[in-house]
Parts: sequence; structure tokens; C-alpha cells
Amino acid sequence: MTHIDLERIDKLDSRFRANFINSLTGYKSCNLIGTRSEKGETNLAIFSSLVHIGSSPAMLGFILRPLTVRRDTFENIKQTGLYTVNQVASDFLDQAHQTAAKYKQQTSEFKEVGLNEQYLDGFKAPYVAESKIKIGCSYKNHYLLEENDCILMIGAIEHIYFPDHIQDTDGFLELDKINTVAAMGQDGYALPKFLGRLSYARPESKPNFIKNGT
Amino acid sequence: MTHIDLERIDKLDSRFRANFINSLTGYKSCNLIGTRSEKGETNLAIFSSLVHIGSSPAMLGFILRPLTVRRDTFENIKQTGLYTVNQVASDFLDQAHQTAAKYKQQTSEFKEVGLNEQYLDGFKAPYVAESKIKIGCSYKNHYLLEENDCILMIGAIEHIYFPDHIQDTDGFLELDKINTVAAMGQDGYALPKFLGRLSYARPESKPNFIKNGT
Repeated sequence: MTHIDLERIDKLDSRFRANFINSLTGYKSCNLIGTRSEKGETNLAIFSSLVHIGSSPAMLGFILRPLTVRRDTFENIKQTGLYTVNQVASDFLDQAHQTAAKYKQQTSEFKEVGLNEQYLDGFKAPYVAESKIKIGCSYKNHYLLEENDCILMIGAIEHIYFPDHIQDTDGFLELDKINTVAAMGQDGYALPKFLGRLSYARPESKPNFIKNGT
Repeated sequence: MTHIDLERIDKLDSRFRANFINSLTGYKSCNLIGTRSEKGETNLAIFSSLVHIGSSPAMLGFILRPLTVRRDTFENIKQTGLYTVNQVASDFLDQAHQTAAKYKQQTSEFKEVGLNEQYLDGFKAPYVAESKIKIGCSYKNHYLLEENDCILMIGAIEHIYFPDHIQDTDGFLELDKINTVAAMGQDGYALPKFLGRLSYARPESKPNFIKNGT
């Protein structure tokens, strides 16, 4: 077991440190966030920081990097109050990853990477047609993290689109059935294999699988 | 494709909604957070909300649910300023899941679920001996999310322990080599299969795999 402390972490080469520290949380969610400016320019960007905030009301959060450079996602959300979250699956992983390239502001990542805009039920932000789980969110609030000027963006879930056959009778979604990928570090991806669901944890009993993976 | 809007989301049965909304982010990180009170009582709890905050300085965040009931993790961090983050692997998944049971405050989840406390390099919070990636964190700040009274806890990384053989020469950690699991929804787990790492995205080129999964 290798041990590395703060003093040594601080001395690491910055790219090495970024790869290393980004790997530590374990597997991460992998989603594309779609927005549109007031002028109508669309933007699409991959995020691995989407996190569950609450079920009632239903809210999601994600971390935006500091606004020291242009952040179209943030600007567009400020302008319109709307964005979409689209789960990334293995069959369009390359295109999803490519949205991280620094395209010009007027350039739509949708067009450049070859993913299709989709507009549903009057919602003004673009969904990704290729994505099987799509969420329409409205801006709720944001928090500036004074430690490093990142931003936690909080959105309310307004619309959910998903394939009916992946939902268990109690609401759970079997993400493996639609090849949702997980992110690793800054540039790694994995395809999870479902192990199962464990029973509600109680002090007086041991957990058992209430549903098994296949 | 099934569509469900806010009005229908709000009317869902609360358990169904919790399973459903918790599934929407995609795969999540899966870690055990270890703490110790000033009195010396240890606590261990599973979290699926750990998120990368920054590499320089190295920081992690996680979401704590509202303090309307006793939250030993939060109380202990307030008391001591220290906690550990321990990646969950498939060989101790049952025990990790079982830490979610509502044990009494004086009861240590370590003992109850059968995981071993480990103290390293003078750090006062307990690590999980069985975990292959362990991080010692100090309290940095917390943000109360006024939308639902959840808390975003920000910690600085002080110590990292990991098996040397899983690290690429550029810092990336191959989590699949130590069977790190990903969380799904509230009670689901998956074992990811490494697909590979994609090249740095640039507008003028297409991504290609710089490292392939096995």
C-alpha cells in the first residue's frame, strides 16, 4: 500500500495530480448537459459531477469549474433558466467525450460531435436524441464554493423521459439495460455490470439480495 | 419512451419516487465515511454522493441529508474536524450496505457489520482496513442547501493510501483492478468493466482510445 500525504500531493506534477485526484472518488455519473442561449445558440457539455440532491422536491446538482474562462453552460442557464441532463451510453461515448473540446462559442457541440438536438413538450433547452434517459431541469439556485471558486448548480426536475421496460415496479431503473456508462478520473469510462439490489438495512437483520444481477 | 412531468412526479408514491429519482443521475460513487467522536465512539456510513471538488488544492465533497434526525457523521466531523473516505469493493459490499442501518449512537457500525478499524500515521479518524483506496480528510467548510436543508460538506485531502500497481504512469487509477463498485439508485450496486481512456478532446481531431480496457 502506497501512502502519500498532503506535502507530497502538493508537489506532484499538475497533470499527474489531476489524473490521480480525479480517480479517488470512485466511479462517477456520466451525463451531457444541454443548453441554449437567448440568441438560440446551443451548447452540449459532458459532466461527471451530477449528484442527487433530493427526491421531494426532485432536484439534481452538479459542479461547474471556476468562471475564469468562458463557461457556456453556466451562461446559458443564467440566460434562460433551463437545461437538460442526458445520460451517456456506450454507443455514443466518443461523441459525448468530444463535447469537452474547446469549440468556439458560436459553434454547437451537437453539430460538431454528431449528436442530435431534440425538443420535447415545449421545453426550450435541447435534449440529446440519442440518450435514453433525459431530464428537463429548471434553475433553482447556485452556490459559489469559496474554497476554489467552483459552483454547485442546483436544478429542479421538471420532465423525465425514460424507456418503460427498464423500470422495476418500485421505481428503480436498471441502467445496465440501456448501457449507461460510468466515468473514471478525467478521461476513463466503464460499463457497469449489475450486481443486484440489497434489502433495506436494519440493525436486527443481515442484507440479502432482493434482486440479482443477470 | 415514457414521459413524466413535474405534476405527475409530485403525485408519485414517496418510496417509488425515491427509488426513481435516485436512479436518474446514473452510476454513483460508493464510499464508506469513517469518523470518531471526541469521546472515542466510531461511526461508519455508506455514501453515494462523493464528488470531486478540485485537484489543487485536493478536495472532495459529499451531500449529507437534513439534520432533522441524528447524523453521527456530521456531529463527529464537527467535533474532530476529521474523517476518512474508503472505497467500497465487491468483496465487502454486504457489510458496507449494512452500515446504513439505524444503529444506536453508542454502537459502532465497524463492529456491527464486521469491518475493521485501522489507524494510520497518527490520523485520528478510523479507516476501513478492508478498503484498498483510503483517504484521510480534514473539514474545510460546509454549505447548507436552503432548497431542502441538505448539506454539502467540503473536505481537504490530507492522506491517500492506494495499491501502487493500479496507477498508470500519468496518475490515473484503474479502479477495476480492485473491484471498486458503483452505486445505483438507493440500494443497487454494479461492478464496472473498464472500457478505456479517451484522448484529450480537441476541436480539430476525433477522440481515440489511449488505453483500452481488457
